[in-house]
Amino acid sequence: MDIEFLDDTSLSESQIATSDQSLEDHSSDWGTMPGEEHPPDVVVWPESTEDVSSVLAAANDRGIPVTPYAAGTSLEGHAVPVEGGISMNMTRMDDVLDVRPDDFQIDVQPGILGSVVDETVAEHGLFFPPLPSSGKISTIGGMIANDASGMQTVKYGEIHDWVLRLEAVLADGTVIETGSRASKTSAGYNLMDLLVGSEGTLAVVTEATLELAGIPEQIWGGRVVFPNRTEASAAIADAVRSGVDVAKIELIDELSAAMANRYLDADLPDVPMAFVEFHANHHVESEIEFFRSILAGYEVEDVQIAESGPEMERLWEVREEMASALKQYDPDLTMLTSGDVTVPISKYAELIDHISTLEAEHDLEIPCFGHAGDGNIHYTVMVRRDDPDHRALGERVDAEIVHHAIELGGTCTGEHGVGRGKTAYLPEEFNQATVDTMGRIKETMDPNGILNPGKLF
Amino acid sequence: MDIEFLDDTSLSESQIATSDQSLEDHSSDWGTMPGEEHPPDVVVWPESTEDVSSVLAAANDRGIPVTPYAAGTSLEGHAVPVEGGISMNMTRMDDVLDVRPDDFQIDVQPGILGSVVDETVAEHGLFFPPLPSSGKISTIGGMIANDASGMQTVKYGEIHDWVLRLEAVLADGTVIETGSRASKTSAGYNLMDLLVGSEGTLAVVTEATLELAGIPEQIWGGRVVFPNRTEASAAIADAVRSGVDVAKIELIDELSAAMANRYLDADLPDVPMAFVEFHANHHVESEIEFFRSILAGYEVEDVQIAESGPEMERLWEVREEMASALKQYDPDLTMLTSGDVTVPISKYAELIDHISTLEAEHDLEIPCFGHAGDGNIHYTVMVRRDDPDHRALGERVDAEIVHHAIELGGTCTGEHGVGRGKTAYLPEEFNQATVDTMGRIKETMDPNGILNPGKLF
Ligand SMILES: Cc1cc2nc3c(=O)[nH]c(=O)nc-3n(C[C@H](O)[C@H](O)[C@H](O)COP(=O)(O)OP(=O)(O)OC[C@H]3O[C@@H](n4cnc5c(N)ncnc54)[C@H](O)[C@@H]3O)c2cc1C
Ligand SMILES: Cc1cc2nc3c(=O)[nH]c(=O)nc-3n(C[C@H](O)[C@H](O)[C@H](O)COP(=O)(O)OP(=O)(O)OC[C@H]3O[C@@H](n4cnc5c(N)ncnc54)[C@H](O)[C@@H]3O)c2cc1C
Repeated sequence: MDIEFLDDTSLSESQIATSDQSLEDHSSDWGTMPGEEHPPDVVVWPESTEDVSSVLAAANDRGIPVTPYAAGTSLEGHAVPVEGGISMNMTRMDDVLDVRPDDFQIDVQPGILGSVVDETVAEHGLFFPPLPSSGKISTIGGMIANDASGMQTVKYGEIHDWVLRLEAVLADGTVIETGSRASKTSAGYNLMDLLVGSEGTLAVVTEATLELAGIPEQIWGGRVVFPNRTEASAAIADAVRSGVDVAKIELIDELSAAMANRYLDADLPDVPMAFVEFHANHHVESEIEFFRSILAGYEVEDVQIAESGPEMERLWEVREEMASALKQYDPDLTMLTSGDVTVPISKYAELIDHISTLEAEHDLEIPCFGHAGDGNIHYTVMVRRDDPDHRALGERVDAEIVHHAIELGGTCTGEHGVGRGKTAYLPEEFNQATVDTMGRIKETMDPNGILNPGKLF
Repeated sequence: MDIEFLDDTSLSESQIATSDQSLEDHSSDWGTMPGEEHPPDVVVWPESTEDVSSVLAAANDRGIPVTPYAAGTSLEGHAVPVEGGISMNMTRMDDVLDVRPDDFQIDVQPGILGSVVDETVAEHGLFFPPLPSSGKISTIGGMIANDASGMQTVKYGEIHDWVLRLEAVLADGTVIETGSRASKTSAGYNLMDLLVGSEGTLAVVTEATLELAGIPEQIWGGRVVFPNRTEASAAIADAVRSGVDVAKIELIDELSAAMANRYLDADLPDVPMAFVEFHANHHVESEIEFFRSILAGYEVEDVQIAESGPEMERLWEVREEMASALKQYDPDLTMLTSGDVTVPISKYAELIDHISTLEAEHDLEIPCFGHAGDGNIHYTVMVRRDDPDHRALGERVDAEIVHHAIELGGTCTGEHGVGRGKTAYLPEEFNQATVDTMGRIKETMDPNGILNPGKLF
């Protein structure tokens, strides 16, 4: 690809790279399997909305693909430039533009890390609740693009619930404004929530106004130990259904716990657990009492809940790094999938049982952990690296889990997004006409198909 | 218009009317000023998704306008068929399809009244939190179309936060599925939130899955009396900014109070007030204590807060009927506008002061009430019915209030929607390119422009 046309944009030399290293760095994301990398032809680092706009306008005129790239922590190949072209690295646009603590708001550029938002607003007693487990290593722009969510979603909601306003650049370089700094608006179509979750295929986000919450006065947490997955998932679902006001309620199964012990230097019992956290401004004990009363109806081996301190922090760190532990699991085994199915909470125990049944039936290892309170599970089918038959079996089992989740009224992806990995499930989850409608919106907003081609459809 | 083509649809005779009365009934909504009515050519009452689909397909082939009509309580002419054609009355599609208390979910048809949802799920200890003040007289479909919200939005959010899934019919009769019964999803574009707030211009909603909340164990409420609007708005904003967990916090000014006394047989002091309500499962007093501690910093004439009972219920009824009182205000005066501006909470007092200044400067009466906790105010410029100059003055003042709210980072409409009344403000609130993008989406999804033409743009 001839990149001379970039001379006509607002970029300077230091914002453009074609070195092998740069191209390789942008050829994969966290979820890319070996052999599935695709390097771009060139990497650009915009530093302003104008840069984004001028690159897009120039690329659009020439039909050159542009794939936004942020921290590259996506799990379904979202940020891989499968058709080459430009990888647009957003990480230099990482400024805090304005903090308005009286409005519980912050304006940021998209390349900022999630944890930096939290650090920035902590002095005002505020935090950004919907951060994913990858909050320390991924960007606000990537979260918006995936409509990410996380451990605190069970109490506080998803990314889209905490984004108030976006500035974004369309494929042809046009800058649009969506949403409002008012806490609510009914002015025109909600383009904002159309962009949230669109995985860089409709526009490049250049600015976001985020809503914040007050850091609770009381944070208590702990873990509950169960004899098996069935009991764990049933008890968690019951707590949620009973309306326990829990801020985090994560399932970690025995395989995940074992892996965390091996690779993260953790010291967990090798049994299914729930990690929990409670937030309140007063009388947090009353809510914990209520939770304990629900647990009383289940086989529970141990409950430890106390005011949060370093020990609890460490537990949450272990939980955050769980995916990395899986990657290292066993030199002979490889992670086939990063499952992200999510079902109505009343079906949660059924979903988990189904996974356990498949595991036993096919003699597979399928470690499971996830945001149980949302009905979400990150299961991972492990297959023998160099055994195509085993891999094919793993793929069938994975597909069966997704089909079953959809049958239960659930979704193929609760938070990670579609990327390249989940496209086949959309017609099943909705219907073909719905996917076609999405396609028509894509065509309208990006007629030359330059934005992150090969994803979502 | 020749309506013979309706014979080819799934409608039976009892679902079609062309009587003068029917046409007149569908020529206006609550906000339509005398002289601005437009009758449709025919009214149809679909009873199923198939009915909606077959009517739309037939109308689309012939380029005949179709305007959905529900309870007609919109305030900006949303439901008025300004280009004639078909008024599609949705109120026969008012079934409860499924209640799933364990998932906090209900599936309904769109024509159901909001209050009926609450009545249906009450036996399970659940309620639908984002109902507008018109919840007893308006439908879920109308709320979805306007992305309505209400008194409890300050704690619980807007309609779009509580809609999980929609079935809808596109202009050409195609049925699409959006959202999920899972509590969260990142599967494909968020078409659901594009439909929410689209005012019947993109699709007709035929089914909705709503999320529910548990009825709190403790509901306390009351009113706070202030010496003037400035003090009232400043104190309310401060409470919200301080993070008081309030479930309702409404501003009612002295003019609105006087009107409520005259027309609703209320017995309110003729001074600005905040009506408040607190929801908790335990220790509600602690939160009320916190609220009182904020009030201590302001001039407050009286604070009465107690466990909710009939007296409090009556207060909320009065608040719900406030708009009707305004309509009757003074035989010589007419409501020019139903203002719905909403600003970031830190600008709320400034917004209210600006209205008071304009009122004094132009010797106008501008009663104000609204969902203050959201930064929202429903101001109403009253003008002399038969005085065109006075009316023109009122229009100028109204526009000035909206301009000012937008300058403060706010929106021209927090909840009522655009309809015919607010179209001019969209390019100012966003930019022209944004409005053009909305227009392109409209063209893509409704190429013949049959769905509720003349609205939103
Ligand atoms: C250990 C680990 C834990 C994780 N936990 C969670 C979790 O709990 N919840 C969850 O939801 N996800 C989780 N993820 C997945 C992932 O981290 C998140 O979805 C994250 O939000 C991706 O952000 P990123 O900055 O890495 O984006 P990238 O991976 O670089 O990009 C993601 C997508 O966004 C697009 N994009 C990036 N920036 C922009 C922009 N400014 N405008 C438009 N498009 C843009 C890209 O083109 C791509 O399609 C986890 C991943 C890992 C590795
Ligand atoms: C006294 C009073 C108080 C009010 N308080 C509030 C408030 O607190 N908050 C608030 O937000 N609003 C309020 N409103 C405005 C209004 O009541 C709401 O917006 C309500 O949701 C409108 O519902 P409806 O059933 O009357 O819809 P209609 O007025 O009949 O229709 C509204 C719009 O929805 C479209 N529509 C209707 N059904 C469908 C469908 N099934 N599919 C697609 N489009 C459809 C119509 O074409 C129209 O554009 C109030 C109004 C009054 C009169």
